[in-house]
Amino acid sequence: MISCKGVYRALTIREKYMRLAYQRFPLTTSQYLRDIEGEPFKPEHSVQPVFTSPPKEGEDPFNTKCLPENLSWVARMKDGVIYVYKDAAEADQHKPIENMPAPHYETFIDDMNFLIALIAQGPTKTYSHRRLKFLMSKFNVHEMLNEMEEMKELKLNPHRDFYNCRKVDTHIHAAACMNQKHLLRFIKKSYRVDADRVVQNIKGKDVTMKELFANLNLHPYDLTVDSLDVHAGRQTFQRFDKFNAKYNPVGASELRDLYMKTENHIDGEYFARIIKEVASDLEDARYQYAEPRLSIYGCKPNEWAKLSGWFNKHRVFSPQLKWMIQVPRIYDIFRGRNFVPHFGKMLENIFMPIFQATIEPHANPELSIFLKHVTGFDSVDDESKHSGHMFCTKSPKPEEWDIVKNPSYSYYIYYMYANITMINQLRKARGMNTFQFRPHCGEAGAVTHLLASFMTADNISHGLNLKKSPVLQYLYFLAQIPIAMSPLSNNSLFLEYAKNPVLEFLKKGLIVSLSTDDPMQFHYTKEPLMEEYAIAAQVFKLSTCDMCEISRNSVLQSGLSDEEKTHFLGADYLKEGPEGNDIRKTNVAQIRMAYRYETLCYELNLIKEGLKTD
Amino acid sequence: MISCKGVYRALTIREKYMRLAYQRFPLTTSQYLRDIEGEPFKPEHSVQPVFTSPPKEGEDPFNTKCLPENLSWVARMKDGVIYVYKDAAEADQHKPIENMPAPHYETFIDDMNFLIALIAQGPTKTYSHRRLKFLMSKFNVHEMLNEMEEMKELKLNPHRDFYNCRKVDTHIHAAACMNQKHLLRFIKKSYRVDADRVVQNIKGKDVTMKELFANLNLHPYDLTVDSLDVHAGRQTFQRFDKFNAKYNPVGASELRDLYMKTENHIDGEYFARIIKEVASDLEDARYQYAEPRLSIYGCKPNEWAKLSGWFNKHRVFSPQLKWMIQVPRIYDIFRGRNFVPHFGKMLENIFMPIFQATIEPHANPELSIFLKHVTGFDSVDDESKHSGHMFCTKSPKPEEWDIVKNPSYSYYIYYMYANITMINQLRKARGMNTFQFRPHCGEAGAVTHLLASFMTADNISHGLNLKKSPVLQYLYFLAQIPIAMSPLSNNSLFLEYAKNPVLEFLKKGLIVSLSTDDPMQFHYTKEPLMEEYAIAAQVFKLSTCDMCEISRNSVLQSGLSDEEKTHFLGADYLKEGPEGNDIRKTNVAQIRMAYRYETLCYELNLIKEGLKTD
Repeated sequence: MISCKGVYRALTIREKYMRLAYQRFPLTTSQYLRDIEGEPFKPEHSVQPVFTSPPKEGEDPFNTKCLPENLSWVARMKDGVIYVYKDAAEADQHKPIENMPAPHYETFIDDMNFLIALIAQGPTKTYSHRRLKFLMSKFNVHEMLNEMEEMKELKLNPHRDFYNCRKVDTHIHAAACMNQKHLLRFIKKSYRVDADRVVQNIKGKDVTMKELFANLNLHPYDLTVDSLDVHAGRQTFQRFDKFNAKYNPVGASELRDLYMKTENHIDGEYFARIIKEVASDLEDARYQYAEPRLSIYGCKPNEWAKLSGWFNKHRVFSPQLKWMIQVPRIYDIFRGRNFVPHFGKMLENIFMPIFQATIEPHANPELSIFLKHVTGFDSVDDESKHSGHMFCTKSPKPEEWDIVKNPSYSYYIYYMYANITMINQLRKARGMNTFQFRPHCGEAGAVTHLLASFMTADNISHGLNLKKSPVLQYLYFLAQIPIAMSPLSNNSLFLEYAKNPVLEFLKKGLIVSLSTDDPMQFHYTKEPLMEEYAIAAQVFKLSTCDMCEISRNSVLQSGLSDEEKTHFLGADYLKEGPEGNDIRKTNVAQIRMAYRYETLCYELNLIKEGLKTD
Repeated sequence: MISCKGVYRALTIREKYMRLAYQRFPLTTSQYLRDIEGEPFKPEHSVQPVFTSPPKEGEDPFNTKCLPENLSWVARMKDGVIYVYKDAAEADQHKPIENMPAPHYETFIDDMNFLIALIAQGPTKTYSHRRLKFLMSKFNVHEMLNEMEEMKELKLNPHRDFYNCRKVDTHIHAAACMNQKHLLRFIKKSYRVDADRVVQNIKGKDVTMKELFANLNLHPYDLTVDSLDVHAGRQTFQRFDKFNAKYNPVGASELRDLYMKTENHIDGEYFARIIKEVASDLEDARYQYAEPRLSIYGCKPNEWAKLSGWFNKHRVFSPQLKWMIQVPRIYDIFRGRNFVPHFGKMLENIFMPIFQATIEPHANPELSIFLKHVTGFDSVDDESKHSGHMFCTKSPKPEEWDIVKNPSYSYYIYYMYANITMINQLRKARGMNTFQFRPHCGEAGAVTHLLASFMTADNISHGLNLKKSPVLQYLYFLAQIPIAMSPLSNNSLFLEYAKNPVLEFLKKGLIVSLSTDDPMQFHYTKEPLMEEYAIAAQVFKLSTCDMCEISRNSVLQSGLSDEEKTHFLGADYLKEGPEGNDIRKTNVAQIRMAYRYETLCYELNLIKEGLKTD
């Protein structure tokens, strides 16, 4: 069958790009692909990302002594991708170090064009649509037959329930990780203590906090959640621009600078303190973790130095937090203001410092320490903005992209992926932790975004638009790509709560987790992640097993280290199917796990059989 | 117009029964009724319930010294209603004390039959339907025009926001007032401390907690939220019976007895402690209050003595809690087991002790103290059970109702109302606090339930079925009858969340508040009332002004004292319209208040004008 052939090839494409970048691809799916090819399955061919284990008792996470030694290698960008060379001479001849292959540009475009054609192909669309419909009905039958049995398993499982199974907030922006009430309290407290502190310097003139607020014509004592005005409301629906403005407390960018930035006159002290308070709340809640995103813009080459300086200075570390770097897709703005000469420079600003710190850790101790705690990269911005550019073999290379127009989503994604691939190979070779690529994808805009991420991302945030493409949705299922969903965020921005596909995806067997996105804008209670779960549970009538499965998914999706995952999910967590599940730790019924595994195998087998009938 | 005439008469009926029982009727509506009648409006004719103020600094709420002196009056039941007489001789001749009129039975039935006809009358249905549709559209227009202005008012209002405006959980059952996690923690803790304590006596044999749990084949150490199994799930939808079984932890009624009953071998100590922990959480949250319901069954005459003994012994008092008494409508079960000879005895068991304590406080000190803190009566049970009985002039009197069959909802409601009326007149005369009648009504079953409550109840819980009767819905609007709604509870039992009419009612101007009903069964977080508000805000996209209006409604609906209401809502809270609103305390925009007031006046005026055209 033509559709099985296409689906098979699509999976091999993803497998190839995942392996190249030390990202994940399910063993089960790999096994079926080898079966189809008549090749032996070698589990050792599968790769895993490397994350830093939490510090041992008494160990200092900021200790620079154990950094690997410096090397004399050289990193240099060519056609938008950074390569590593033994020395400058080899760099001049472009002879990169062996065993660190870059993705092949033309092949990538070919693969992409193949997938673009595939998702539009009639028979494949019909096939995927029917398979997804079948998956839905099958789960409904499973539920009717086994719901009570699943519950029975959970009831017999001592000590563990939904409250004390681990869950990770897989998608949260650091600048909005506190809820509105928390921010309000913090602002009031800081004013009580620091009114006379110099917090700004405008044109050489020191400005105290008192003066800053006086200039804004307000007194923190009078501030309320209403006047703070950071919560998304009905006004933000379909208005990403208005939503972004909500990041400014009282509409004043000065307050955003003071409280929610790492770079300012007080070296981001308040922001660090707020984040540490959030971390401390998570530590109290004990079973909750979060993966906050900090921004790197690519505007200047010293952004990493400043960010890691902030991280080290304020010792912003918590075992509950795994850091991610978000890169906004706003080259057009920087280029318009002449901050960068071309897109290549922006990529260089984003990635070169990491290569340098990886090659010479002791020359970049603060950044090297920070990178140990970074687990991945996110790509962020309003996806509904259309760029007009079409990524193809004729697209200008990043160094040639000097117009003010923004390149397309796919172009951004490719170059982020390519550089993350290179840095991961280098870091893996040096025995360091690697990074995952986890872009915002499918929140809005074209379905091709989801296609680009299918090729490049370990996992994604949002994925709403999988609704619009049955082929991609089915591929995301077969490749078991985790999706961090934030229905409360969507409810304020793009999609009403009851229409959110999170339940549909869960039933079909897509790997969904729940995340808050921006507690400051969306949540009301002191426990935003619990609020997110509670609302989903109520509106979608989730069972305990559903909720624990989502929690388990969130741990698997996250950048928690192998050590932590072993502790939270069980020693065999890397195995797929019921044997990979330790119900004592996850509170997910084995019946459910068996159902998921058999269902995936059944679908993969169908493709295998379909290929034989050709 | 015939419909205006009917609506007018319906309102006068409610006004009459409210005044008789010291329950509330809006001044604005009264004023229009007098206008229609060409009578002068005398505000002094309006009545208010009396609630006990919170104890002053250093005052002991359990102090019996300040109780009024004993009188020698006599209380005796006649035809299901208790009357008060100067002495036994006058009682024998049925010459009750003057100025304490009972509702007139035949007139009540007449009034009821009039209303039954009215709500089925074509023209009145059309009229009400059109008015409600108009109210809906009018609010939508108001919202589009004034939403930003309302928000602006709130932003300019210092110190006050949604978080620190007072809100009351207007409908919560004491036995389920803790969340599931709280109950689990309490059970585990009690076992750690009290394993060897005797907690039961079965047939003369003492049973320790250890033995009790051993008999149940479980160890609290292994217990989880799952095995506790008190949370409502998909299984409880449309199954009130299954829902009721969820009151038994681990399905064991022994544990319900031990932890959630006031009467047991340990004198309800654990139950008292759990409630005090809930109260202490509310005290920490500062702006939240609750009105828990405790049960009186009417099975035995000493129930009140035992309940008030529990209340006094464990000093179950908190400024955050206002107590209510719930009476289950399960005469049929008691009669079936021969606990009571007839329905009249059940009523006597329920009400006679209150009359006695009110006449002779010093002879019933514990009950007298408890009654000071009781603010009203609730009538509870599954409304979807149909009784088959039709309340009419030919219905047997309670003393004659000796069959096993349950009387109808309306019959229960009438006799509860009649006795509450009598007790309120007596207590008012003695300078004591009065009681409100606040039944569960319209959660399921026939719309006539809502009709009975329209005649008798100060306010109701649920009211979902107002959806089914436009006439009653319009009357509830015109009479501004508060409705405590619990969409999360409905979601598990009777109506999916998104279909809940709470938003529709709010928009039309009905007086809705949000309440939790049973946090143990429905909620996930540590702050059930905030969870209830947060979910409503998210799913229905409520504005801050909406949420603060609901909060204000909840305070008005509640049994908080005049002193507390003045403190929480402003000195003029009894005035209607914008002048009754103190935005500094309520955070409700004056634009909203003006809109509500003008809208009500407009509708009342329409009736006035409609009557002229006849």
